[in-house]
Amino acid sequence: MALKHKGLEFESVPWRFTDREAIAFSGQGLVPVLVDGKHVVHDSWSIALYLEEAYPQRPGLFEGGQSQGLTFFFQQWASRAIHSAVLKVIILDVFARLHEKDKAYFRESREKRFGMTLEQYAADPKAALAAFRGALEPVRPVLVQNAFVSGKGPGYADYLLFGPFQWARAMSPIRLLEPDDPVYAWRERVLDLFGGYARSAKGFPVWA
Amino acid sequence: MALKHKGLEFESVPWRFTDREAIAFSGQGLVPVLVDGKHVVHDSWSIALYLEEAYPQRPGLFEGGQSQGLTFFFQQWASRAIHSAVLKVIILDVFARLHEKDKAYFRESREKRFGMTLEQYAADPKAALAAFRGALEPVRPVLVQNAFVSGKGPGYADYLLFGPFQWARAMSPIRLLEPDDPVYAWRERVLDLFGGYARSAKGFPVWA
Repeated sequence: MALKHKGLEFESVPWRFTDREAIAFSGQGLVPVLVDGKHVVHDSWSIALYLEEAYPQRPGLFEGGQSQGLTFFFQQWASRAIHSAVLKVIILDVFARLHEKDKAYFRESREKRFGMTLEQYAADPKAALAAFRGALEPVRPVLVQNAFVSGKGPGYADYLLFGPFQWARAMSPIRLLEPDDPVYAWRERVLDLFGGYARSAKGFPVWA
Repeated sequence: MALKHKGLEFESVPWRFTDREAIAFSGQGLVPVLVDGKHVVHDSWSIALYLEEAYPQRPGLFEGGQSQGLTFFFQQWASRAIHSAVLKVIILDVFARLHEKDKAYFRESREKRFGMTLEQYAADPKAALAAFRGALEPVRPVLVQNAFVSGKGPGYADYLLFGPFQWARAMSPIRLLEPDDPVYAWRERVLDLFGGYARSAKGFPVWA
């Protein structure tokens, strides 16, 4: 979404959890990894900062230094409040759709992190969905007031929050949001950006 | 702090919870209320927006529309995560220092809100302090990276977060933060702003 925002052409490479060799050149084992000529950047926040610095003449992901600082807070909040909450809702759907090659790694690494089995972690889906929707509370008044988290137009904070939704849409038929939720309307707006770029990715219908 | 940031002269009027008559002209019963010539504005967020619009040639509280949107999210987060958490830590100290005239109103309105007595609400001060410090988690990496929540210089988001600390400092000798906490160093920086304006207000030493 950040590349699209900046109007940069790119090629994306499908990747699996256990496919460490494919990104070994980046010196670490996690995605996303951006390759731009001689530049190799990993970690989505570092990639956003790199794009902003390398392509200053393109549309900004941040209005300036203050927006960048506030978006960094938004990232810290979202990574604590939202990412784990959505994972708890969709984890068994994610697991079911993993390639067979990845299943053992995924189960082992996540069960170690949670201190319990995936099934125990996902044992109360109703409570997990309620907790996820509750975690979105502070963003709702913002999306009632403005079309995007970043104000009148989308910015990097919007793509940050959209990531978990797009991931969930790809992996799970669960209806994460009710249509009367301001976050639902915002997700529609983000799905519509760049000629419906995110919507064109394979996924379950969001109104399922 | 917003008035100081914009370099505007002002006179502040001491006020008590039950002193509704003094602000009746604003058409409601809560502080803060700003009177600027013919303009009467209440609610701190509305006051910030008013100041930004009425005095655009003065230093900005927001870098622009994106910062304003992101700061509004920060306000929504802080009002949920921080304000009630600090209140739980200091409420009995606040109550002890209220004017006798205000005590009955304060006790009654807060006990109705909490559904328990003030003493029950404050029954576990150690847990309340740990919860407050935990609620600050997402802001710590931001204050390690930048001097202020708003980046290199202070913005309205900083004053938003500072409010509860200044209130606590005025009302309670409790040591809210440890000196090795990045939030502690940030609070020092905010106390130093505008020639130590906030520090000059009567309060308990923050290192008590």
